Amino acid sequence: MEQTVYLDNAATTCLDKEVLEAMMPYLTELYGNPSSTYSYGRTARLAIETARKSVAASLGVKPKSILFTSCGTESNNMAIAAAIRDLGCTHIITSPIEHHAVLHAVEHFTAIHQVSSSFVTLKEEGLVDYADLEAQLEQYTKEGKKCLVSLMHANNEIGNLLDMQRVGELCGKFAAIFHADCVQTIGHYPLAFDNLGVHFASGSGHKFHGPKGTGILYIAPSLEIRPFIQGGGQERNLRAGTENVAGIVGFAKALALATANFEKEQAAIGALKAYMKQQLQTTVPQVSFNGSDDTLYTVLSVCFPKSAESDALLLQLDMEGICVSGGSACSSGGGGSHVMRALNKGTGCNTIRFSFSKYNTQQDVDRTIEVLERVLTANPVATA
Amino acid sequence: MEQTVYLDNAATTCLDKEVLEAMMPYLTELYGNPSSTYSYGRTARLAIETARKSVAASLGVKPKSILFTSCGTESNNMAIAAAIRDLGCTHIITSPIEHHAVLHAVEHFTAIHQVSSSFVTLKEEGLVDYADLEAQLEQYTKEGKKCLVSLMHANNEIGNLLDMQRVGELCGKFAAIFHADCVQTIGHYPLAFDNLGVHFASGSGHKFHGPKGTGILYIAPSLEIRPFIQGGGQERNLRAGTENVAGIVGFAKALALATANFEKEQAAIGALKAYMKQQLQTTVPQVSFNGSDDTLYTVLSVCFPKSAESDALLLQLDMEGICVSGGSACSSGGGGSHVMRALNKGTGCNTIRFSFSKYNTQQDVDRTIEVLERVLTANPVATA
Repeated sequence: MEQTVYLDNAATTCLDKEVLEAMMPYLTELYGNPSSTYSYGRTARLAIETARKSVAASLGVKPKSILFTSCGTESNNMAIAAAIRDLGCTHIITSPIEHHAVLHAVEHFTAIHQVSSSFVTLKEEGLVDYADLEAQLEQYTKEGKKCLVSLMHANNEIGNLLDMQRVGELCGKFAAIFHADCVQTIGHYPLAFDNLGVHFASGSGHKFHGPKGTGILYIAPSLEIRPFIQGGGQERNLRAGTENVAGIVGFAKALALATANFEKEQAAIGALKAYMKQQLQTTVPQVSFNGSDDTLYTVLSVCFPKSAESDALLLQLDMEGICVSGGSACSSGGGGSHVMRALNKGTGCNTIRFSFSKYNTQQDVDRTIEVLERVLTANPVATA
Repeated sequence: MEQTVYLDNAATTCLDKEVLEAMMPYLTELYGNPSSTYSYGRTARLAIETARKSVAASLGVKPKSILFTSCGTESNNMAIAAAIRDLGCTHIITSPIEHHAVLHAVEHFTAIHQVSSSFVTLKEEGLVDYADLEAQLEQYTKEGKKCLVSLMHANNEIGNLLDMQRVGELCGKFAAIFHADCVQTIGHYPLAFDNLGVHFASGSGHKFHGPKGTGILYIAPSLEIRPFIQGGGQERNLRAGTENVAGIVGFAKALALATANFEKEQAAIGALKAYMKQQLQTTVPQVSFNGSDDTLYTVLSVCFPKSAESDALLLQLDMEGICVSGGSACSSGGGGSHVMRALNKGTGCNTIRFSFSKYNTQQDVDRTIEVLERVLTANPVATA
């Protein structure tokens, strides 16, 4: 088999060599418990606090606003639970195309705490209708409810981007809490949460060449919340459990690398995505693209007109060693994409998400196009 | 400074070289997302399921009973939350010397779900009074409550052991749910949960030379519970969030090594503990030991009679490169040991916990005794 072509970087990314190097001392000789008071434990504590400062600097916030968690999903759960339990939110406004880490958490915590929720209206291409968001905020606030708005910065399947500043301002106007799921954008955009009106933001290390099993939650300095995982006094009493020191160090290193090289990488990855889009347009009749015009530069969601050949595309690409996905990895278990269903897309399409990283090359795209062309023209593409 | 002597293995342990070797492929080339359906993702999925089988085999249970989490604390939180929310428990019986990961979780979830809790009576040396446990189970069951009993297999500070079989039988008699916090014993004893009447058992990788940021929850096959962290369908819908593949592989490898070498290691570590106890008795006047007669073979909790010299012991040992703790690492932030307070110990003592691993040697003990003798006899030991 030819070499693997990995175009599923929105699902997960490879660990950078430099990140692993930064982690190695904490996987070998520096194994002390950061809560231990002796020198050897303090070395581990120092590594965590240095990591926190580095992450905070990358995100334009104070170190005390950064909480280390075990994944983006835990961060999302924690933000939603805390908004209801500790900040008095009694209504949640979210969207039907959020990640399940938000949608299922909203279902769960609204049921336990008996608070209400609603979906914001989406425009045709899946963008948030800000007028509807404002109308809903106004309505529920008038009814005496305190709102939590939980919306993702970039959709993981189609790449649509949210205007966080605008949502932050709307939330400010109605004294609502704003949680931004930034799992697809932390490490991909320079962000400065303290200036965006964001109260909570979630990030995940393995989406930008950091380790799996690591996440952060940004918590605005004005908020006082309690832990999601109860127990010891780690993370200033906000996240119990012995810290994954190597993971935390790796998260910080990956984010520092991403921050340092952001412009170069965005340009290169964006060019690769544009090249693929153009190649698809010249190769695949009636191809179209999901999402709005200006999507996340790492994600290209493609609608292949339904046919016997395109039905088998994912399988055929896998057999050729090309890694892509139909939707998100987390929902690949079955039932298809809730995002496509919510947008009434997909009945005439076989959707494939191509997602890029700094390690992808034009050769990766060329080989993918070559295989796509071969598979799709085994018979001419037919309209379903 | 002389080489570090690490005698705080109940706080955390070093990662075994073989464990790191087993993890390395998943920190480098095999970085696929286990939820991805293509071959490259299935490789990661296979690694997780192989790890689950290996862990299950070590613990005498079926693979489907093993859930991978981010730490022992998460496991404890999940068990307690699920017992109340999904299994209908309305009263929790625990003890005042449990780890904070249980005590604070009990406080939190009993408050949210408005259920009651009580402490079992402890005997003088901290052992559970089984007659009182039975009486409480009888009383609360008579009152129409369904009980959760949450007790640790081995106390992390003083090493007292619970008779899990006996508690399992008592719980069975009153249709109660039994959660055993086994963070100090999984990887240190051969356990077979399916035969102990245990419903939930928590374990933590970094306590037996596995990686930090990894834990398991054993869930008895008869139970149907919902996730603690909501979102994607990972871990058969029981723990959302992209899996820490390398961590899971490391956990399983560490447990497999511990299981294979259990008898040899228990003998060696137990002998070292006995040697240290005997050396302390001959060196330190009026020394005594906390806990019952038959404690966890890795833990020796020592009462040094209070004096100006013993007040400074932790600091002095740290300066000499000897890593030990006053209590647990998790509660080292301040306020002293809740275990010692609950047992009315410690007013005449400076308590130090020495905890051993297979990597400790007689030289480690000899050097520690030499330092202790030097520090304590700067002036003769005085009774406070």
